[in-house]
Amino acid sequence: EPVPACNDLAVDAISRERLTRDFLAVRAATENLAATLTAEDQNIQSMPGASPVKWHRAHTTWFFETFVLKPHHADWREIDPAWAYLFNSYYNGVGEQYPRPQRGLISRPDVGEVGRYRSAVDQAVVELIESAPIERWQELAAIVRLGLNHEQQHQELIATDLKHGFSQNPLHPAWTDRPAAAEREAAELRWIGFEERIAQIGAFDDGRFCFDNEMPRHREVVESFQLASRPVTCGEYLAFMEDGGYGKADLWLSDGWAWLQETRIDAPLYWQRDDDGRWWQYTLGGLRPVDEDETLAHVSFYEAFAYAQWAGARLPTEAEWEIAAGSATDGNGPFADDGRLHPTAVTEDRNGSPAGMFGNVWEWTASSYAPYPGFQAPRGAVGEYNGKFMANQMVLRGGSCATPKGHVRATYRNFFYPPDRWQFSGIRLARRA
Amino acid sequence: EPVPACNDLAVDAISRERLTRDFLAVRAATENLAATLTAEDQNIQSMPGASPVKWHRAHTTWFFETFVLKPHHADWREIDPAWAYLFNSYYNGVGEQYPRPQRGLISRPDVGEVGRYRSAVDQAVVELIESAPIERWQELAAIVRLGLNHEQQHQELIATDLKHGFSQNPLHPAWTDRPAAAEREAAELRWIGFEERIAQIGAFDDGRFCFDNEMPRHREVVESFQLASRPVTCGEYLAFMEDGGYGKADLWLSDGWAWLQETRIDAPLYWQRDDDGRWWQYTLGGLRPVDEDETLAHVSFYEAFAYAQWAGARLPTEAEWEIAAGSATDGNGPFADDGRLHPTAVTEDRNGSPAGMFGNVWEWTASSYAPYPGFQAPRGAVGEYNGKFMANQMVLRGGSCATPKGHVRATYRNFFYPPDRWQFSGIRLARRA
Amino acid sequence: EPVPACNDLAVDAISRERLTRDFLAVRAATENLAATLTAEDQNIQSMPGASPVKWHRAHTTWFFETFVLKPHHADWREIDPAWAYLFNSYYNGVGEQYPRPQRGLISRPDVGEVGRYRSAVDQAVVELIESAPIERWQELAAIVRLGLNHEQQHQELIATDLKHGFSQNPLHPAWTDRPAAAEREAAELRWIGFEERIAQIGAFDDGRFCFDNEMPRHREVVESFQLASRPVTCGEYLAFMEDGGYGKADLWLSDGWAWLQETRIDAPLYWQRDDDGRWWQYTLGGLRPVDEDETLAHVSFYEAFAYAQWAGARLPTEAEWEIAAGSATDGNGPFADDGRLHPTAVTEDRNGSPAGMFGNVWEWTASSYAPYPGFQAPRGAVGEYNGKFMANQMVLRGGSCATPKGHVRATYRNFFYPPDRWQFSGIRLARRA
Amino acid sequence: EPVPACNDLAVDAISRERLTRDFLAVRAATENLAATLTAEDQNIQSMPGASPVKWHRAHTTWFFETFVLKPHHADWREIDPAWAYLFNSYYNGVGEQYPRPQRGLISRPDVGEVGRYRSAVDQAVVELIESAPIERWQELAAIVRLGLNHEQQHQELIATDLKHGFSQNPLHPAWTDRPAAAEREAAELRWIGFEERIAQIGAFDDGRFCFDNEMPRHREVVESFQLASRPVTCGEYLAFMEDGGYGKADLWLSDGWAWLQETRIDAPLYWQRDDDGRWWQYTLGGLRPVDEDETLAHVSFYEAFAYAQWAGARLPTEAEWEIAAGSATDGNGPFADDGRLHPTAVTEDRNGSPAGMFGNVWEWTASSYAPYPGFQAPRGAVGEYNGKFMANQMVLRGGSCATPKGHVRATYRNFFYPPDRWQFSGIRLARRA
Ligand SMILES: [Fe+3]
Ligand SMILES: [Fe+3]
Ligand SMILES: [Fe+3]
Ligand SMILES: [Fe+3]
Repeated sequence: EPVPACNDLAVDAISRERLTRDFLAVRAATENLAATLTAEDQNIQSMPGASPVKWHRAHTTWFFETFVLKPHHADWREIDPAWAYLFNSYYNGVGEQYPRPQRGLISRPDVGEVGRYRSAVDQAVVELIESAPIERWQELAAIVRLGLNHEQQHQELIATDLKHGFSQNPLHPAWTDRPAAAEREAAELRWIGFEERIAQIGAFDDGRFCFDNEMPRHREVVESFQLASRPVTCGEYLAFMEDGGYGKADLWLSDGWAWLQETRIDAPLYWQRDDDGRWWQYTLGGLRPVDEDETLAHVSFYEAFAYAQWAGARLPTEAEWEIAAGSATDGNGPFADDGRLHPTAVTEDRNGSPAGMFGNVWEWTASSYAPYPGFQAPRGAVGEYNGKFMANQMVLRGGSCATPKGHVRATYRNFFYPPDRWQFSGIRLARRA
Repeated sequence: EPVPACNDLAVDAISRERLTRDFLAVRAATENLAATLTAEDQNIQSMPGASPVKWHRAHTTWFFETFVLKPHHADWREIDPAWAYLFNSYYNGVGEQYPRPQRGLISRPDVGEVGRYRSAVDQAVVELIESAPIERWQELAAIVRLGLNHEQQHQELIATDLKHGFSQNPLHPAWTDRPAAAEREAAELRWIGFEERIAQIGAFDDGRFCFDNEMPRHREVVESFQLASRPVTCGEYLAFMEDGGYGKADLWLSDGWAWLQETRIDAPLYWQRDDDGRWWQYTLGGLRPVDEDETLAHVSFYEAFAYAQWAGARLPTEAEWEIAAGSATDGNGPFADDGRLHPTAVTEDRNGSPAGMFGNVWEWTASSYAPYPGFQAPRGAVGEYNGKFMANQMVLRGGSCATPKGHVRATYRNFFYPPDRWQFSGIRLARRA
Repeated sequence: EPVPACNDLAVDAISRERLTRDFLAVRAATENLAATLTAEDQNIQSMPGASPVKWHRAHTTWFFETFVLKPHHADWREIDPAWAYLFNSYYNGVGEQYPRPQRGLISRPDVGEVGRYRSAVDQAVVELIESAPIERWQELAAIVRLGLNHEQQHQELIATDLKHGFSQNPLHPAWTDRPAAAEREAAELRWIGFEERIAQIGAFDDGRFCFDNEMPRHREVVESFQLASRPVTCGEYLAFMEDGGYGKADLWLSDGWAWLQETRIDAPLYWQRDDDGRWWQYTLGGLRPVDEDETLAHVSFYEAFAYAQWAGARLPTEAEWEIAAGSATDGNGPFADDGRLHPTAVTEDRNGSPAGMFGNVWEWTASSYAPYPGFQAPRGAVGEYNGKFMANQMVLRGGSCATPKGHVRATYRNFFYPPDRWQFSGIRLARRA
Repeated sequence: EPVPACNDLAVDAISRERLTRDFLAVRAATENLAATLTAEDQNIQSMPGASPVKWHRAHTTWFFETFVLKPHHADWREIDPAWAYLFNSYYNGVGEQYPRPQRGLISRPDVGEVGRYRSAVDQAVVELIESAPIERWQELAAIVRLGLNHEQQHQELIATDLKHGFSQNPLHPAWTDRPAAAEREAAELRWIGFEERIAQIGAFDDGRFCFDNEMPRHREVVESFQLASRPVTCGEYLAFMEDGGYGKADLWLSDGWAWLQETRIDAPLYWQRDDDGRWWQYTLGGLRPVDEDETLAHVSFYEAFAYAQWAGARLPTEAEWEIAAGSATDGNGPFADDGRLHPTAVTEDRNGSPAGMFGNVWEWTASSYAPYPGFQAPRGAVGEYNGKFMANQMVLRGGSCATPKGHVRATYRNFFYPPDRWQFSGIRLARRA
């Protein structure tokens, strides 16, 4: 059962009961992700851009404390100002931040203290939801709902950051011992055509939840195009590798080629070859052979671009992707709730629509992350949530196997830097009609 | 008298006489830029992204040798394969390249040898233009014309790279001893409105010269907007500085703020304050006081963005800029041909159109450098000219005081990385209508 | 009661009982250091040159497993080859090593597993000590004794690495809540003279324990000199700071001055100034005001050199130090066994000998770490223990407040790189007679 | 004819004529080194630790201007204070310095201006030598003599820095077109024994020139040892390489091994292998095959150490080297004056003494660069000449093929960092008697 965090309701239609229920469910889902981890597992940070699980647990709590309790809960007492310094991620509007690359050094507060911090904040937020005066209800409900969507984003980061940390350990620790999803064949790749149009892009401003970066809804000219019926598989990517794709300069963006020379990368993240030449990949279920039908993940924008060049295609723009997503009919997945945190093979959509648009892997688009025409960040520190990141990053669409079900939608814009690979990021091809 | 390098003619209308004349004029303009420089001046490289003047003189010659003489001139004999290695910039399709950050170590060939190389290639190209068989004329004329536009781009780099190199010298060497342009007042800033439209953006494919990245011409929805009547002045930027603009995190993009912390930048490039608090700037005419009416140059995209935030405005998209440029009526400038290589104050356009759109300073746009819908890079090594750089860079428009007159046009797309400041890059504001 | 690890006995005089007792005592002392730490505390690594406490606990165990159990214990079964990879520090002779800067990422095995690893190895070593055939006893006893001295060295590193890690946390975690040592006044500084001699330097080869780098005992010409009666105090160092010592280039070695410019260091490690200009220092008992009588610690060789220049003196050579240490009469200290892991003030030696030579702080010497004439490293992987580090490091003498009592002696040579400051490293002055 | 710069005379015995003659000869030798170089050749800087030839020409002139003319010549007028900033190397006592890694950016003053600077200073110094009042003669003569020895050191750096710069150029520019020295066989390696002694080490304080770091003369215990009869040849070093020496961790110091992993070095500097596996080396006479009899040069201390380990020997201490040098009987060489700037094969000494101790290649010793007992740097800025470098460097002895004849002596101490290779640095073995 998905946890939609009220995203299906306009904020003025959210009841206290519904918000309480969603709040507790989202908060519990975070704890659930950490349940099998040791204290050390929760404290490691394997690169500056990743954070420890314990930090995510504390930071999401700090978010509620800072943006919900402090302004709305008269009796709330901050535990220690140093905690605000430690667990503020990047909100300059509410104070300085502990250096991000050092989050793995925060041994104190320990996992027990962070657990108690979560409980104390949970209790206070629930009290507040139940008792807030009616005239502040809409404001409160809106910020709680933002906090829940924020926490779901961090749930995905918990999975991807932990995977990166675990991958550094030669013991190949597993987060889950559930068997991998039943093996199945990927669908044949087909091209699905879309007519030229002046499209409406972005989210409606109808009170249902979306992030500020999905608005305003606006028009864009989109020429006719074709989209691949499913994302690229590991087997298809292996063919690119075997054809020498990593060594052909003409397939790569100049910055991508420089990145290859510097990093000596020659395979997706988490892939390794054994002495017999067989490819393995580290997963949150441990080390497993690469399955050719499985959807490819953990490639950078540069690799996605080069693969598309090699395949005689290109990446879709985010407008193209959003148009196509509007026609998707299947439920898709897998999502984080499926408990495996790993992609599967994508089969044919029963209506011939693009399959696997949601869940499984984020799909790199050809679009840089930029404000929509007329974009305005909200006032105050919450305005730092999205807008200030609109440079140097590329948009990804559709959610992944680590995204909570119900969190993502057709207009949802995720964004990462071109070389980033530790997300479940894959490729869907497009081409001229 | 401008040197338009035949850009005003479709390629099938270019005569041998006209092309010869333009060829010699462009080639001479390069030599003219270097005429007052010592051999050492021509060999210094002050950062990995800049190149020595001598290298530019040799590289532009290598371009003609490689793409004009080798394919078209039966008798051409390459001087030394090592020269091709030294002077190939980034064309993987024609061979490996000497490491870019080491170009300042190329003491041999010396300035005399490079001069003789230029002469030998000039002579052979002129022979070729005069004698090429008629059936290869169009192909030849097209590649020569590309080579001339290429050389003009390097003329601008000669100026900006030399300025950066000279600025490292406490003796403040001057490239010119001509007096600075007559001082004059900048026009008042006005806002000029543009209606919403579905605009045609990009160059016509009519045989007149443009770069591949300006095509194909295509439609974009552009909402109504207002554009500033002139670019930002040094005085306006000083007000931003004095208001603490470099210290207010909420004005900056996240990457811009991180860049500030790392570089400790607190003024435009080449600005320095004396003990009395007065601002000076290094120019190619030596050290001079900052003139408040002069058009601001040498700011990064990050600074341009922050300034616009501070001013309650934003940067224009490249489509907006191109629409507005279509309405410009003045000749504008200054351009490189004016021989001062420094911006001036922008006065009112006599028809009330946006003033100073061409020449003076490149204007950062809000648009990342991306392919237009349906963009196709040409086949072969020349296809590496533009397309492979379409990531991580922002578009600038309009040319600068170091751009040769006639080289730039309304559809022209220049591009640099967000932190780059050594170009004559400035700011023009836009805002919602 | 000190734990001398049999160092007072020649190896052929060590009984099984004595070795068992010492073995268990040293092993318990390690566990004791970690007893109050959380799992996260034990896993953090705050710089590449430091290691997590858990890693030290595992590595010292691996040392016994590798050099004692594997060669001597027929029934020993290695737990997992990946553990040998993780916990081998630098012994190329026994295999590859997990990258040192990533030791903080080793979340698995967790603290519980490492505890069980220690117990299993302890039990097997004790069995072996009790049951080893007499003809292998001497060899076994020698390697166990080396392992114990090795473990004591790591006990000191546990304290210093943990201190460095804790110091990164704005909560200032304390390892101990014992009150700081009773405050007392430091003795007046006197100069104690030593006659010129041809000295015998280094350890006797008499079967009592010493490291290979203390041998062979050899002769050196040592001119007459004077040694300070006690190490430099915090108050004396404050005077150097207040006199602008960190800003006077002529006091510093060239490399030291470059290090200052790069790091912007202007005080000992762990010192910070509050808004009132008062100096505080982070200690393993939490944040405390700087006590002027206390012995100065946490300075680099560069700072020690500059201080000595400023004071009109110099650092002693290691031969001078060793001669003077031979005349020391007091028990000195504090050592790690005192449970505070912090230096104290040094009072007058009752016989007028140099006071505070042992314990408290390591004293930088003017001598680079080099082999004594005729030095031979032992054969095999154990030969990597000391010899291969004889470049780029300086010798320190005398032990510190984090050194286990009984571990150090007059001939003991410790060594660190000139910029290192995270050890309890201080200064004792010398000068010409 | 050597240019001994009066080093054979006590300062009170130097006549004005002799000093003038030596002054002009040394100054001319510098110009001679640069005579065949282009302006660009003289301006390149291929690494932070190297300097352009033009800079060396200007800096040595600045040295005379600063330490001779300014204090002694009443009429001297400084050309431009910015020149003092540009050409001061590291003397904090006389002012700030232009950043060393940017010396290659100093295009102005150009080679012509530097030549005129040299002439002007030369003329003034000669006037001064001829006219200085008798009561200041000794002081003047001493500082001029220091300036000449300083200039000779820079002559060696001109050769080695230029070689490094030229080596970056795929055209392999040659400084000389003189044929390489006649090929000859290296002598058989013999071991020459030296008895144990209490040696007198360092220079006599008798008025003849030596650097401050060679004093005071003092006693050291030196145990009996054997020294190789000649330095290591290229052929011997090739045997080490072919035996896998660069891949055997047990031969290397720990820092040396880390240096290998980081740099991926696997041969001496300037060596390269062609497709047939034949070894070539870049020399100042161009690219040449490696000659197995030639004396090995361009290895680091780390490589020298590893080679010695592999050969079952060690490096000599500087005291051992100095004792042996006292017994050398041959004239040795080659020196810079021979005009080839490249090592030759060393043949047998006719008296059976160690051959090739002087000239050819500097020989790494096992001794770190440290002050002799009682060392005192001179007062004032000249005191920065040597003393402040006494950390982190190793001593080399004997001079090289780029050292001016007459400049070096048995007590002369050169020093470089362990990884440095761009000097003509080689290996002589020692071992226990
Ligand atoms: Fe967050
Ligand atoms: Fe180019
Ligand atoms: Fe160890
Ligand atoms: Fe010098």
